[in-house]
Amino acid sequence: MLSPFELKGDIFSILDQRELPFEERWIDCSRAGQVVDAIKTLAVRGAPAIGIAAAFGLSLEAVRGMDALDSAAEELVRARPTAVNLSWAVERVLKKVRDKDPSDLLLSTRAEAYAIWEEEKEANIAMAELGESLFNSNIQYTILTHCNTGTLATGGIGTALGIIRKLHSSGKLKEVFVDETRPLLQGARLTAYELMKDDIPCTLITDSMAGFLMRQSMVDAVIVGADRIANNLDVANKIGTYSLAVLANAHNIPFYVAVPMSTFDEDTKTGDGIPLEERDPGEVLGFGGRQVAPEVNVYNPAFDVTPKALITAIITETRIFI
Amino acid sequence: MLSPFELKGDIFSILDQRELPFEERWIDCSRAGQVVDAIKTLAVRGAPAIGIAAAFGLSLEAVRGMDALDSAAEELVRARPTAVNLSWAVERVLKKVRDKDPSDLLLSTRAEAYAIWEEEKEANIAMAELGESLFNSNIQYTILTHCNTGTLATGGIGTALGIIRKLHSSGKLKEVFVDETRPLLQGARLTAYELMKDDIPCTLITDSMAGFLMRQSMVDAVIVGADRIANNLDVANKIGTYSLAVLANAHNIPFYVAVPMSTFDEDTKTGDGIPLEERDPGEVLGFGGRQVAPEVNVYNPAFDVTPKALITAIITETRIFI
Repeated sequence: MLSPFELKGDIFSILDQRELPFEERWIDCSRAGQVVDAIKTLAVRGAPAIGIAAAFGLSLEAVRGMDALDSAAEELVRARPTAVNLSWAVERVLKKVRDKDPSDLLLSTRAEAYAIWEEEKEANIAMAELGESLFNSNIQYTILTHCNTGTLATGGIGTALGIIRKLHSSGKLKEVFVDETRPLLQGARLTAYELMKDDIPCTLITDSMAGFLMRQSMVDAVIVGADRIANNLDVANKIGTYSLAVLANAHNIPFYVAVPMSTFDEDTKTGDGIPLEERDPGEVLGFGGRQVAPEVNVYNPAFDVTPKALITAIITETRIFI
Repeated sequence: MLSPFELKGDIFSILDQRELPFEERWIDCSRAGQVVDAIKTLAVRGAPAIGIAAAFGLSLEAVRGMDALDSAAEELVRARPTAVNLSWAVERVLKKVRDKDPSDLLLSTRAEAYAIWEEEKEANIAMAELGESLFNSNIQYTILTHCNTGTLATGGIGTALGIIRKLHSSGKLKEVFVDETRPLLQGARLTAYELMKDDIPCTLITDSMAGFLMRQSMVDAVIVGADRIANNLDVANKIGTYSLAVLANAHNIPFYVAVPMSTFDEDTKTGDGIPLEERDPGEVLGFGGRQVAPEVNVYNPAFDVTPKALITAIITETRIFI
């Protein structure tokens, strides 16, 4: 069974997703700082997964007392700016243990980290069932997805990919088209890998092909995940999501976003207020570690914002926002 | 001065664009079959450039007589299916020399190949001037382009890139955003390289970022080339062009196509009749021989069709179709 992390004794181990699908390398973390590095470098990625990783990372500092937890928390929250799950998970752990006896900190932080992971898993299952209910029986749908929203991104069956798995197991899935998702190819490397492991029919395309597929009526619905949802239901997600939403809209194709409630950020009014991470130019200048472009200027936003108006429904573990 | 090919004595040499920008390797061709291979493998690409290459390739068989020319012509035309310039150039050479004395074949084919090249160069200059006239003076525009439509694709200053060069020299250009153009990265490798050589301000993005740029009002116009234009003005061009056109349309951004008249195919009524090449899955599974995805099913259409309704204007060397 695939899992993006595990706790063995006092070591929190993170599966290095940068090396997948060709190498299964684990990063053993004994301090929160190592988890911060793993999050920053995208060894672990996916909004729910980095929330869980941050919670466990925090627990690694518990033996050093509450001050150590507070300072590790600050560092963890700053590791990446866009996914709100990171601060949500860290604050949840801190709140739980704030007034605990110092001798209880290790057990309490660890228990809360496990609780967060367990709840994300349950949320995945619940949203998969709610999401599946949006699709008719006796029809086999072709779904387009972007980036990776599966086990590697969530620690569970996945958000968008959880719904896709559920559609498959209930006989409603014909095929999945997987956007490769440049620059870091999470679709090609991770989603294709997860779907193949589960024998779910899938076809890889470059991001630029999605519109042409839609024009040929080859896509029945788009399902993606998200990194933060503003109070007005604008959605920040992996770069390329906005283009897909515009294209789906132009072709009258339903566009669904699947997220746990932990991805909602009530404190951010609209998508304009969501901080969008810009990453290293090297990610665009190269491909799979090999430089392909001359040393030219690069713009590399890792996320974009899709306004609610382009979204058919947002599917969570408790309800569907339409 | 950059050039995609040159004739030295009896050798027609093709600059291997697969190795650019890091290596300048030339393929020396003494037979048409070698030119066919260069076209098939994309050592030379770009609709006008493969037309010119095919004309010179044909001339390499002239010493073997008219039958040899006819059979080489068939092979050249079949090398790639979408760009109509290929058959246009080959038929033009054949027609010119059909009734010539055998002793004249070498000179006549070569003269016609040079004439085609020269006319494409002149067409580039003429369409650059017509294209530039569509943009106001005293404004500096930010242009988005896709694939490579420059010297490497045309043997001249370029089609879309020729207009961009002209906008730059007349002070109307602020910056060019260059789509990297997966799977073969002609934008990242070739267009960025050409623009940097000419000190034209440019920024590289992944194809998936174009929509987000448009939403942020960072793009004033899109200019692309084309591989074939049907009689109803539907346009076949590099995969991803259709998505760009839909996105530009949704954001009220002008979408221009720049082509020589040799790219028009009066015999094809609509875009639906244009044969669209599908290429090897390996192009999507990796890049430059390095695989990044597992051995998953792939869909790899090299071109798509953009309906005339999404195109603001088609700019040629003789007139602008609006």
